[in-house]
Amino acid sequence: MKIVRYKHDLGFSYAFGITLAIELFKTRPETVRRVFIKDNAKDSEFLESIIEMCNKLNKEIVRNDKAFNILSPKENCFVITEFSKFFDNISRRSSNLVLVNPSDAGNIGTIVRTAVGLDFNNIAVIRPAVDVFDPKAVRASMGAIFHANIEYFDDIKEYLEEFPDHNRYAFMLKGRNDFGGLKIEKPFSLIFGNESSGLPDEYLDFCIGTKIEQSGNIDSFSLPMAAGIAMYEAKNKK
Amino acid sequence: MKIVRYKHDLGFSYAFGITLAIELFKTRPETVRRVFIKDNAKDSEFLESIIEMCNKLNKEIVRNDKAFNILSPKENCFVITEFSKFFDNISRRSSNLVLVNPSDAGNIGTIVRTAVGLDFNNIAVIRPAVDVFDPKAVRASMGAIFHANIEYFDDIKEYLEEFPDHNRYAFMLKGRNDFGGLKIEKPFSLIFGNESSGLPDEYLDFCIGTKIEQSGNIDSFSLPMAAGIAMYEAKNKK
Repeated sequence: MKIVRYKHDLGFSYAFGITLAIELFKTRPETVRRVFIKDNAKDSEFLESIIEMCNKLNKEIVRNDKAFNILSPKENCFVITEFSKFFDNISRRSSNLVLVNPSDAGNIGTIVRTAVGLDFNNIAVIRPAVDVFDPKAVRASMGAIFHANIEYFDDIKEYLEEFPDHNRYAFMLKGRNDFGGLKIEKPFSLIFGNESSGLPDEYLDFCIGTKIEQSGNIDSFSLPMAAGIAMYEAKNKK
Repeated sequence: MKIVRYKHDLGFSYAFGITLAIELFKTRPETVRRVFIKDNAKDSEFLESIIEMCNKLNKEIVRNDKAFNILSPKENCFVITEFSKFFDNISRRSSNLVLVNPSDAGNIGTIVRTAVGLDFNNIAVIRPAVDVFDPKAVRASMGAIFHANIEYFDDIKEYLEEFPDHNRYAFMLKGRNDFGGLKIEKPFSLIFGNESSGLPDEYLDFCIGTKIEQSGNIDSFSLPMAAGIAMYEAKNKK
């Protein structure tokens, strides 16, 4: 198999480093295609366990530096795992996080990490949107992405058709309700807009507009922070 | 005055971009030393208002590209503000966020932005630590840093001597108490360790060990996320 630099339209992606490799074998071993190990990688307990898992699951090990020169010339990493992208439907009964047009790979990785940590494993992403399998997103998620169900929708209409009865909370600076004081009912959708532009006003036509209370000394919280605080609040509401 | 690339031991730093320039003039005009404006900067309402503020406060405007070539060769920015670092003591009565050995400039900027948004304007930083005036930190704070009081301490002992009666909550994975269920009393210190290594065990000798409840599917929240959620929770506890 050729080694190809990552592009969004490929059916596979790459996880850099030992931690992500181990997480991937633990959570989604069926997606692993092959594992590249650097020629001069030092023996270690972790490396051994990866080799062992490859052998057990009959996965190819490629032990030379070619993949590293092509895929991560600037990085200090000894293991790269090539894995097939996986597409799950998110559970129709679950409460979800809904990201509308997120554009930054690092951000979406951070959000997925936080979401999985707060048991929001079902995440809807509304296109146009960044690719969650971008290696930068995979890395920023610290492997949490392998635990998440992430489903893309072409537009918000498509999402609403699939989740017609969810209670919808749209986070926007124009939102009138302090989310901390809001009673919310399951199942619900916590909806966040793009990093720069937020959600369009029209979301107020079909959602309850809300926001995280903030001081006047900042323009807004960052998208990952607003989403993290909102999920925490939603999870812990009495 | 010469134009010097940023180094930690300088008494001044740089804020890149129009948004930070305006924020700086609004909050700490006395710290502005001079403003660099790119030769081909397009006239705009914002640019005009910066020029007006410079004239009003008698601040030098340097209108050529030299500073941009030296300070930000790769960036697409039309205004750089050179400002003196400011050192405030944090209020001895306030509840504070305490960052022990933070190492990442982007992270500390994000944390300051969140802290100021949640009215935690008093932030203690325990050395060795990243420089909050690093232009990367200033930018990540989105200007929130100009609203914050940030005080450095040589070690945690020095901090404890200044705040002997604060109730101390140390956030660590070994912490036994779910922070969400904990009753806390003011004034308090929310204490967080380094991004990779966290807080040493010895903090349990003089702090209440606590953590943000998380699922087993992540190792931990990121430092900015844990700090953000903790400040939100502390602010909204009944």
